[in-house]
Amino acid sequence: MSNGSGITPRAQDFSAWYNDAIMRAELADYSPVRGCMVIRPNGYAIWELMQRALDDMFKATGHRNAYFPLFIPQSFLEKEAEHVEGFAPQTAVVTRGGGKELEEPLVIRPTSETIIYAMFAKWIQSYRDLPLLINQWANIVRWELRTRLFLRTTEFLWQEGHTAHVDEAEAEREARMILGLYRRFAEEWMAMPVITGIKTASEKFAGALRTYAIEALMQDNRALQAGTSHNLGQNFAKVFGVQYQTAEGGVAHVWNTSWGVSTRLIGGLVMTHGDDVGIVCPPRLAPVQVVIVPIYKTDTERAAVMEVSTTSAEMLRAAGLRVELDGREGMKPGAKYYDWEGRGVPLRLEVGPRDVGQGQVTAAQRTGGKSPIRVGELVRSVTFRLEAIQRELLERARTRCEQRTRRGVTKGELIAMMNGEGGFAFGGFCGSGECEAAIKEQTKATIRVLPDEEFRSPIAPVRCVWCEAPSVAEAVWARAY
Amino acid sequence: MSNGSGITPRAQDFSAWYNDAIMRAELADYSPVRGCMVIRPNGYAIWELMQRALDDMFKATGHRNAYFPLFIPQSFLEKEAEHVEGFAPQTAVVTRGGGKELEEPLVIRPTSETIIYAMFAKWIQSYRDLPLLINQWANIVRWELRTRLFLRTTEFLWQEGHTAHVDEAEAEREARMILGLYRRFAEEWMAMPVITGIKTASEKFAGALRTYAIEALMQDNRALQAGTSHNLGQNFAKVFGVQYQTAEGGVAHVWNTSWGVSTRLIGGLVMTHGDDVGIVCPPRLAPVQVVIVPIYKTDTERAAVMEVSTTSAEMLRAAGLRVELDGREGMKPGAKYYDWEGRGVPLRLEVGPRDVGQGQVTAAQRTGGKSPIRVGELVRSVTFRLEAIQRELLERARTRCEQRTRRGVTKGELIAMMNGEGGFAFGGFCGSGECEAAIKEQTKATIRVLPDEEFRSPIAPVRCVWCEAPSVAEAVWARAY
Repeated sequence: MSNGSGITPRAQDFSAWYNDAIMRAELADYSPVRGCMVIRPNGYAIWELMQRALDDMFKATGHRNAYFPLFIPQSFLEKEAEHVEGFAPQTAVVTRGGGKELEEPLVIRPTSETIIYAMFAKWIQSYRDLPLLINQWANIVRWELRTRLFLRTTEFLWQEGHTAHVDEAEAEREARMILGLYRRFAEEWMAMPVITGIKTASEKFAGALRTYAIEALMQDNRALQAGTSHNLGQNFAKVFGVQYQTAEGGVAHVWNTSWGVSTRLIGGLVMTHGDDVGIVCPPRLAPVQVVIVPIYKTDTERAAVMEVSTTSAEMLRAAGLRVELDGREGMKPGAKYYDWEGRGVPLRLEVGPRDVGQGQVTAAQRTGGKSPIRVGELVRSVTFRLEAIQRELLERARTRCEQRTRRGVTKGELIAMMNGEGGFAFGGFCGSGECEAAIKEQTKATIRVLPDEEFRSPIAPVRCVWCEAPSVAEAVWARAY
Repeated sequence: MSNGSGITPRAQDFSAWYNDAIMRAELADYSPVRGCMVIRPNGYAIWELMQRALDDMFKATGHRNAYFPLFIPQSFLEKEAEHVEGFAPQTAVVTRGGGKELEEPLVIRPTSETIIYAMFAKWIQSYRDLPLLINQWANIVRWELRTRLFLRTTEFLWQEGHTAHVDEAEAEREARMILGLYRRFAEEWMAMPVITGIKTASEKFAGALRTYAIEALMQDNRALQAGTSHNLGQNFAKVFGVQYQTAEGGVAHVWNTSWGVSTRLIGGLVMTHGDDVGIVCPPRLAPVQVVIVPIYKTDTERAAVMEVSTTSAEMLRAAGLRVELDGREGMKPGAKYYDWEGRGVPLRLEVGPRDVGQGQVTAAQRTGGKSPIRVGELVRSVTFRLEAIQRELLERARTRCEQRTRRGVTKGELIAMMNGEGGFAFGGFCGSGECEAAIKEQTKATIRVLPDEEFRSPIAPVRCVWCEAPSVAEAVWARAY
């Protein structure tokens, strides 16, 4: 910790800055349990806002919430060969219950495909039962050796959608629709621009036919996989016997999708917008959107200033905004500013005797800039400014991401970039796992996605960045969290 | 299953009725995991409404949500002697993680006092940090041998509040305030009357100073403990070193409270209001409050009927009501009625050609009764009827509970009642654990609470129901879930 805000500067050590910013904002804390974190009220409040927004989007598209067991019998996990290979090494296993050794160990869900599709097999009989569109908000456990607050912890919170469809086309539409929904959430709520696309075989979900993802670029030029959506094909349906009677009277296996985002998004929010003072919350996800700080010396000043502060808080709250009035006694205004800046509150209203005299308050934006607002204009102006901050954060992040993106890279450029400053590198890809592995070996970079059309370069690359064989798809490389 | 609704009548076998009613409403299902259930969308939607109402009440009283680890190191659980004795036999234990045997086994939280107060010790330094008012929505695991949907399952969902205070009086006020909040929720939302009071030593929470509870009487005359609130004293604070600097400059241990309600409440709702047709949802917790069923034979009729149905649905939704329009083709109205009755929808609106001709719809209440509503009066009248159903359900349940309550029972009456029809038995209690144990031995009844003043009999009992020693408090016995 080396500057006035008690936070390591980003340029000095981004990883230390990240932890400092989270601790300063009191978003989370380390727990005495290896690899597990505590989400503190300031962090959980962001998660609640994320949940509400996503849940509304899921429900608006016909999904319903349910809850499935935490425990998965070991034999279930083993039924789908790729799936168990992917997840078994990361599991936590219950071997004792009620004081006795269990006959069959229970795995704590690392994801719930197996237990959920076992239930779908009971519930789905006919094409009339389809599509079945389910979502679950739950905790997940994946044993991690190197953990990092929000980004990689042994336990985390997430939502997992699980759906069943009559055919491949409908499942594909669902997986794609959800990917678009995740993108919209990342951009419109988190103000975090993303690239969408498909994962290569080596990066896809264990057991999926195809995995789609949204990928964002953090301020240290490393990529964050922020959400995934899988077309699972009929892999799980065949293993768990999820069949239905078709409209024509035949019997067929359903097609499944699954998709999820997690508390990792909070880490993405911090690393997208934070500065050397601390975190910056996009207004739509800020638990406190506006903080009002009264400034006074004498009792007379206090009375006048508190009246305007209280009235302002009431007006803003009545307009549906999340407002705190910081009336703490015996604490200087500067100390209060410091406090709320560290928590990332997007807009601060300072109310001093001079402001009151002039029928105004002074608005300071967390993103910079300070100017007066007429009290009569308060609600309109604050709403307008919050919307402007939301847009500004997205634009800033987009500009940064574009500056850190290089297209049509050569092999040498890819190596230099990935071993140097990082960023998104677009280039041709021959489709071979060998090239992918060799690049990862030399640069630690992976193909984040084969980007969707709107993100591709105007001129498609002709040759593979690595082996110069014909390119089958443009790829985006980055070192990733 | 033996009647037209495919449900065992309550009088024949209440326990079978309970399971049938839940399966018919698709609230839950058995899972392949021993002792664990699946909460299906219809059941989870009730839980979401319960959560929203409770969460609003917690936040309105200054509590904030957070999230703590699922895992508790075994040594933590063992720190508080009574606590471990109470919970250790019920734990599920993780002994393997990431493919290796763990050095210290991790217990899956059966409740989170130990892990939470370990964190409180880090966060609380001074009296200025108090009170600390935290709530967590989480899953809990307690190994159960005999399970029953919602009422007793190995895994369940709950909220657990955990607070820290400067002194006993403030902790006591908190525990009491929450008890009142639970009562209000049970009565105003669930339409389930409860008795409030304090638990005897043998029934209190393992590690608490005092446990308060709300107790409801189900239709089979067995009691359901529906929520508990504990004054934990300084027991956990001393064990985990939760200390603070007092305003006077000294050092003191905090006083804690904890309190919770769980998905068990859904079982309480079913057993309070259900009838031989299925469940009955109180309107405030009904995922679907109003279902509209169009009735027609010809295409001309269909057009007119669907127009009124659609307009009605829109008007009611605009008024904030939860409405389904059941437009399924090829399904007779009677089959639809049957379907929605089983799901407990409080109000059904039938829209037939004759209704349309007369500018009305026909409203059928799940609790009985059918009458027309003028289309122009729709929103006002439906709102009024839902409120009336909500009140009626509470009044019915209250009357039933009063009829099954006997005051001033003698020993012989207590034995006969508890081995017979059941109910709440009020009587004198000497305060001795021996009498309590003897009564439990002979009747399987326990003291549900020593009731709060407003529930006590007008004339206090003089002697213990069992041993005839002087009574120290009136007690309420019942056989309980």
